[in-house]
Amino acid sequence: MSMKAVVFRGPYDVGVETRPKPAIRDPTDAIIRVRLAGICGSELHMYRGIQKTGTGHIMLLMGVHIEGHEFIGVIEEIGSDVNKFAVGDEVVSLFSPVCLKCWYCKQGLTNRCVEGVAFGTQKLDGGQAEFVRVPFADGTLHLVPPELDESLLIMMCDIFPTGYYGASRAVEGLLTQHQSPLTSFRDAHSTKVSLKGQNGHTNGSTNGLTNGQTNHHTNGDGPFDPLGSSVVVCLGCGPVGICAITTALSKGIKTVLAVDSVEDRLSEAAQVGAIPLNLSKHNILDEVMSRTQGRGADAVIEVVGNPAALKSAFELLRPCGILSSVGFHQDELPFTGLDCYLKNITMNFGRVPVGTVFKDALECLKENQGALKNYVTHELSLDEAATGFDLFEKRVARKVVLRV
Amino acid sequence: MSMKAVVFRGPYDVGVETRPKPAIRDPTDAIIRVRLAGICGSELHMYRGIQKTGTGHIMLLMGVHIEGHEFIGVIEEIGSDVNKFAVGDEVVSLFSPVCLKCWYCKQGLTNRCVEGVAFGTQKLDGGQAEFVRVPFADGTLHLVPPELDESLLIMMCDIFPTGYYGASRAVEGLLTQHQSPLTSFRDAHSTKVSLKGQNGHTNGSTNGLTNGQTNHHTNGDGPFDPLGSSVVVCLGCGPVGICAITTALSKGIKTVLAVDSVEDRLSEAAQVGAIPLNLSKHNILDEVMSRTQGRGADAVIEVVGNPAALKSAFELLRPCGILSSVGFHQDELPFTGLDCYLKNITMNFGRVPVGTVFKDALECLKENQGALKNYVTHELSLDEAATGFDLFEKRVARKVVLRV
Repeated sequence: MSMKAVVFRGPYDVGVETRPKPAIRDPTDAIIRVRLAGICGSELHMYRGIQKTGTGHIMLLMGVHIEGHEFIGVIEEIGSDVNKFAVGDEVVSLFSPVCLKCWYCKQGLTNRCVEGVAFGTQKLDGGQAEFVRVPFADGTLHLVPPELDESLLIMMCDIFPTGYYGASRAVEGLLTQHQSPLTSFRDAHSTKVSLKGQNGHTNGSTNGLTNGQTNHHTNGDGPFDPLGSSVVVCLGCGPVGICAITTALSKGIKTVLAVDSVEDRLSEAAQVGAIPLNLSKHNILDEVMSRTQGRGADAVIEVVGNPAALKSAFELLRPCGILSSVGFHQDELPFTGLDCYLKNITMNFGRVPVGTVFKDALECLKENQGALKNYVTHELSLDEAATGFDLFEKRVARKVVLRV
Repeated sequence: MSMKAVVFRGPYDVGVETRPKPAIRDPTDAIIRVRLAGICGSELHMYRGIQKTGTGHIMLLMGVHIEGHEFIGVIEEIGSDVNKFAVGDEVVSLFSPVCLKCWYCKQGLTNRCVEGVAFGTQKLDGGQAEFVRVPFADGTLHLVPPELDESLLIMMCDIFPTGYYGASRAVEGLLTQHQSPLTSFRDAHSTKVSLKGQNGHTNGSTNGLTNGQTNHHTNGDGPFDPLGSSVVVCLGCGPVGICAITTALSKGIKTVLAVDSVEDRLSEAAQVGAIPLNLSKHNILDEVMSRTQGRGADAVIEVVGNPAALKSAFELLRPCGILSSVGFHQDELPFTGLDCYLKNITMNFGRVPVGTVFKDALECLKENQGALKNYVTHELSLDEAATGFDLFEKRVARKVVLRV
């Protein structure tokens, strides 16, 4: 039996082709009849043909394969070892299989699952197709929650958890710095704030502009609010950036400076509550310094994935600042060991453990769905996939989904 | 009035000269009559003449100045704004003044105090002299605790807090990873372990060698011990490395692999409880992999401060590992953005906030003084400073102090 699928054939060349319908290969597999598939920004690296490899790392992402690591659908068939799901279940998939059995999965470090090859690569066909085979279905799939519109739910495959993780690592870093006896004179317990379920921000009620002059010297009598008094920069306001900004505000950061060069993206950033700064109109360093008494940002969330963004992230941070990077970097680091030593920097890099944060991220998305409900700007048919990639690559579309 | 002082005159050239006795300059100053001064490893960068500067950073460390940022003595004179101390008090100094008034000091980030120029540089004369002027005495000095021998107390000026911080940041990173809902499936509270005051290790009772085969798959019924099951590498077993190893073991890490190429240093590392690995005899990567089921170290403490050590630290870490670097780095980072992304690494760099960790580090040193009591191998007179630098630079001495 055959099916239609969006096939990557080379740089700037994707198209719908007829392919064999996938079958169960391992007993932990499930076959999904796809209903909705997203086009993700991380696919553009490949689409543009600029996927590089590091010394000693083999990445075979350029070969012909079926695109797509964001998809929602109905279970068509399951293997004999799938225990959590039944045929007919409506499910949403993570961007990469999660085996739940390896050492990393058992810890919760599902981002380094030893079976974790991404969908939509030469190693594992993706979900921009009528059907897709999902390995380790029990770890990789989640039941569709009834409360969320499908066009928002598609964000849960990758971009919302990725933005959620980028922002939450920054928040976690700031809280740790403020609570740890290693870096704070405060009682390690008096300002304890739970990372989970915190909601210091009412989304949509302010545009955030009035928060720019927050007083950072509230070391006196009142209770100190380490998140509310922090200035956080988000570099990049594409889909992941918007998700990161939404999360940061939701977790109690009051001042998020959102940096991009695309006006439409900056408008969206302002709408969810950030202070928009256009790279081509503002001196970003001056803007950050003027809001921090000349110190620099307390944390920077970097979602862009190029050396210019990483260099900017480093320069915008205050000494002892937190750099949370979820961008996909392929180049040399644009700062030296001396820079790191002198800035006393704390950094984390890499992809989200999406299996681990899925539930908390989903709660955050539900709470903020009002602000994000118009986020998908283009819903096309599977046959129009080439147009969808083109629109997204040219930044005409915020987010494109394909109806199968 | 004049005094004797150890003067840095150029690479490999220090000597005792007659200098004017320092006087109170600012009302927050104190003048200390020095009794004991240490020679610190970080002075060797300068001594060897290999202090570099980064682009845009001005470091004037090479000029003629009085050496020494480790000293203990008696207060000879105080300025009108010194409130915590009186003439005659016995005090130990931090390696760098702490004003307690700037934004960083108020947070606890005393490592970035805006007044924090180090003693023993062209900007601030050091304590290898009969007298030394101490700026911001209230923040920079601590009363000599009665319980500790002077030759151990001199370690509190710099090397013990530095090693303590390097190890504690690694421990903090591991605990955070195991407790955070972002990176762990565990209940965020069930395995809560306080960073402060924890003592999972009885020093001296084992040499640590029997801990190398710790089972890392204790995910079953028993309580999970995130620190006891971790494998931590300390790169560098000089004075700071020994302090870091002592701290890591004291905080509940059971397996510390200590890496160096100097046998005497490795003997000391083994004596305090680490597993010694000689760079010139062992394949360090194989040793780490064999103890971690091929994953790599959970955390690496890097105290050396050169690119080879940093490269090794990166390579020895498992995915999602913690790199805690307190080495003074002056070169390019020996790994790329792609490396960082693929390893999902968490890193922190830079000097210790010594004002913040002083009390906790002192408690840790007191608890472990038995293991470290013979650490100072050479006590010389001030007049023999040149010999002291030479012995230390050639790694003949573990630690040299000068009796004034």
